[in-house]
Amino acid sequence: MKLFDSHRAPNPRRVRWVMAEKGITDIEVVQVDLLAGEHRTPEYRAKVGVPHVPALELDDGTCISESVAICRYLESIYPEPNLFGVDAREQAIVEMWTRRCEFYLANPVMLTVRFTHPALAVLEATPQPQVADYNRVAAERFMKTLDRHLDGREFMALDRFTIADIVAVVGLDFARLIKYRPPAELENLNRWLDTCRARPAASAGV
Amino acid sequence: MKLFDSHRAPNPRRVRWVMAEKGITDIEVVQVDLLAGEHRTPEYRAKVGVPHVPALELDDGTCISESVAICRYLESIYPEPNLFGVDAREQAIVEMWTRRCEFYLANPVMLTVRFTHPALAVLEATPQPQVADYNRVAAERFMKTLDRHLDGREFMALDRFTIADIVAVVGLDFARLIKYRPPAELENLNRWLDTCRARPAASAGV
Ligand SMILES: N[C@@H](CCC(=O)N[C@@H](CS)C(=O)NCC(=O)O)C(=O)O
Ligand SMILES: N[C@@H](CCC(=O)N[C@@H](CS)C(=O)NCC(=O)O)C(=O)O
Repeated sequence: MKLFDSHRAPNPRRVRWVMAEKGITDIEVVQVDLLAGEHRTPEYRAKVGVPHVPALELDDGTCISESVAICRYLESIYPEPNLFGVDAREQAIVEMWTRRCEFYLANPVMLTVRFTHPALAVLEATPQPQVADYNRVAAERFMKTLDRHLDGREFMALDRFTIADIVAVVGLDFARLIKYRPPAELENLNRWLDTCRARPAASAGV
Repeated sequence: MKLFDSHRAPNPRRVRWVMAEKGITDIEVVQVDLLAGEHRTPEYRAKVGVPHVPALELDDGTCISESVAICRYLESIYPEPNLFGVDAREQAIVEMWTRRCEFYLANPVMLTVRFTHPALAVLEATPQPQVADYNRVAAERFMKTLDRHLDGREFMALDRFTIADIVAVVGLDFARLIKYRPPAELENLNRWLDTCRARPAASAGV
């Protein structure tokens, strides 16, 4: 198998983090230079179907894009440690929290960064500052929900670390580019963030 | 089990459609009146955790929100007909297409509708018409990718109907509110849409 990666980009980092948690070292990693537009070449598009990283090329040539689909596929081959839940009920809880953390936290945080950081904002078709504000407000509204949820809980979805934590932390870590950190009064959220950032696998390829 | 549903809303329709494909009739369905704010009551929020439909209450009291997490859970209990893939490779392909159809088609189509339809636009905090335009352009860009992908293919992800088709069709069907239909020159996309809309389960609770 071959992973198409881009070492500073947040979506591929989800996959790198899963690989580090599971100790996966036997997948070839190919760096795709986004600034040079290597994901927009006809070859890349013909292979992957969309101009995105990450993508995982399976041994039969099938290419899987979409970070969470790739991570779940890796779990099927490298099941330990479990990151997606061990039975249907756990899997539902993990998928619920993964989706909540992706849609209501990571996505608006990433948009805030993209519309705030000068070097990234110029890449947007319509670099409107109010997009940054709107998304920061939405992200912080959901951070309050998460802070209440994490009262007395160590991790997002289960009583152990899962893909939901990875998606949430990677989103927040991207905001380091604009020196953003969740409001200090969200103590549970900040404690959880520190716990996750302290994991050895958190620094995989960052 | 108990499903919290809202009969005109698109995200719950994904679950209703899955239930109809699988012939599931033994789950109690509770209507939540969104216009009356029933999803914002303290009781609903305490139970579900977020002010969203759909949500599935399991027999042990656990509540699962997030449409696709609910659909995958239902597949574990009612496995036939298979909608999420039968092995890890199929499951990865289905999840990839489900995510692509959700993020790059259904979401921008739904935002286009919300910022275009007069009765919905007034509900938005900032009802800017350019949000509708921006999202319609993004959705139509991805529709072209899908049209090429569907050349010679009957369905989105596999050679049979899956959850990816449901997510895509439900997004496009929501646009009927503003009498939108994909551009006629996207013949493969329109053929696929007609095929899916002709399924008996497509009209479940619409
Ligand atoms: N939904 C996709 C998002 C992939 C994505 O947008 N990746 C970014 C890098 S973090 C990318 O490829 N950007 C290049 C571009 O859009 O031009 C996933 O979860 O993998
Ligand atoms: N990501 C969620 C979205 C759920 C959602 O936004 N549902 C809408 C109805 S289609 C809702 O609850 N709207 C009420 C509100 O946001 O106030 C899912 O996939 O289930």
